[in-house]
Amino acid sequence: MQKIRAAAVSMENWIGQQDQAIARMAEWTQKAAEQGAEFIVFPELCVNGYMHSTHTLKYAESIPGPSTSRLSELAGQHNVTLCFGMLENISDVVYNTQVIVDGSGILGLQRKIHMPGNEYFFWRGGFEINVIDIGKARVGIAICYDANFFEMARTLFFKGAEILVMPFAYNTPGERADLPSSNVGVMLYRVQCYANGCFGILANNAGEREKTDIEESQMVFPGWAGIFDPFGEVLDWTRDPGNGEAMVVADLDPERLFERRRDIYFMPRCLRPEMYSSIIESTRREVTPERK
Amino acid sequence: MQKIRAAAVSMENWIGQQDQAIARMAEWTQKAAEQGAEFIVFPELCVNGYMHSTHTLKYAESIPGPSTSRLSELAGQHNVTLCFGMLENISDVVYNTQVIVDGSGILGLQRKIHMPGNEYFFWRGGFEINVIDIGKARVGIAICYDANFFEMARTLFFKGAEILVMPFAYNTPGERADLPSSNVGVMLYRVQCYANGCFGILANNAGEREKTDIEESQMVFPGWAGIFDPFGEVLDWTRDPGNGEAMVVADLDPERLFERRRDIYFMPRCLRPEMYSSIIESTRREVTPERK
Repeated sequence: MQKIRAAAVSMENWIGQQDQAIARMAEWTQKAAEQGAEFIVFPELCVNGYMHSTHTLKYAESIPGPSTSRLSELAGQHNVTLCFGMLENISDVVYNTQVIVDGSGILGLQRKIHMPGNEYFFWRGGFEINVIDIGKARVGIAICYDANFFEMARTLFFKGAEILVMPFAYNTPGERADLPSSNVGVMLYRVQCYANGCFGILANNAGEREKTDIEESQMVFPGWAGIFDPFGEVLDWTRDPGNGEAMVVADLDPERLFERRRDIYFMPRCLRPEMYSSIIESTRREVTPERK
Repeated sequence: MQKIRAAAVSMENWIGQQDQAIARMAEWTQKAAEQGAEFIVFPELCVNGYMHSTHTLKYAESIPGPSTSRLSELAGQHNVTLCFGMLENISDVVYNTQVIVDGSGILGLQRKIHMPGNEYFFWRGGFEINVIDIGKARVGIAICYDANFFEMARTLFFKGAEILVMPFAYNTPGERADLPSSNVGVMLYRVQCYANGCFGILANNAGEREKTDIEESQMVFPGWAGIFDPFGEVLDWTRDPGNGEAMVVADLDPERLFERRRDIYFMPRCLRPEMYSSIIESTRREVTPERK
């Protein structure tokens, strides 16, 4: 890993408005590049929209495709690396996919693995967990619900991740500035960084969206974003109140990662993999009480 | 699970002073029983002492043995279940073991699995992960460093745990009352409860201990204890400042556990065990960058 300046952008989310979304991404990319950011993370499904609807099939794109081409061009204009979420169509089955591009094209992608709630009906869980080399660092991506799974972050660590990108579409309103020390869900993301000695870059969608024929619930995205260090400490986090768009920026210093990973209490140094067979068994085992 | 009142006791820790330790445990057991506690948790190695020394062999006992007999008798006197830590001798190899007894005898035990720092020299990591039925609930135990491992808590969940007991010997001074919202390490224990829908009962050793010929470092145990619910929220936590002994008490209500586990966002419902083979591989795989 080399020192890299990262930005996380919490951006409004529209259904099926790729032009509008990419134009807004271009505005934020320019702002981030002006602050020296080299790696810019946008939220889950920011390109085509986050929706609870089988209309995902209408908006899903091939990868590579028109949106990835335009966003690669945008990255090239500013000499940055972009990470963004989009609906992907493979043989008319939809996936929830986060893509990384620079000016040379697509560097890699990660499909969402774990399906929460009713998302199961609208896109399929992926079948590969990848780490993506962006030149200065290796990036693992855990999309929204995936970021709740220790199994996901540990697997990304084992595959070489130094940065965990966590893009979200949380539509749970709340006081966003306070979340890292008040909300167990956000603590969980800090803990993933601490437990695996990785930086974390988080970006949620932002803003209030009206109901539509396609998405029958009114979604309010509280618009938070943040960057954590490999000790789980907060390097930057959305400070302003409200649900609006926001950006945070921080330098990711490999010395800090090294400091965590050389610690004698760095957990992966002390794993007992022979003890964990339950984790890969496919069903929960029955427990027979044996009290005497 | 049935409703049960639990207590966690942060108690002073002495080296090789079993009589003194059991007498102090009796005082706390009486106080806890007077408050209606049915399940009382004491810290790591509270019976024989937490020490960084090969003298662990001098103080390690057989199980069952004199200390477990006396503590079972104590439990019977108050009609409670006790959980405590002791040095265990098996063929002159020492283990760091947490035992559960009631008046009928030993209900079960858990040996510490993961060895941090220099503990490797003083006791051996165990080879079984057990869940212990105490009648009203099933208990999994993660001793100190073990509680940092997602693999440990998840395995205990799969084996049926409803309560995660986490006994500690942290000798890192700090403002103990603030830890659950300021310290990433303690956040991790809250997250273990949230991620597995388990109650958590934590008890650290307490007090300041002088150097001895056996333990060359002066240990200061900040004396915290706490009880978390299956959402990772704090039911009770040491409120008073300083490093002294302390006790917390809370009712563990199975309705709260059910509420967490029936949530559509309860993570174990959505696991993808076929994706996690890295976790049981014995070594970290090499990563070959494939950037084009």
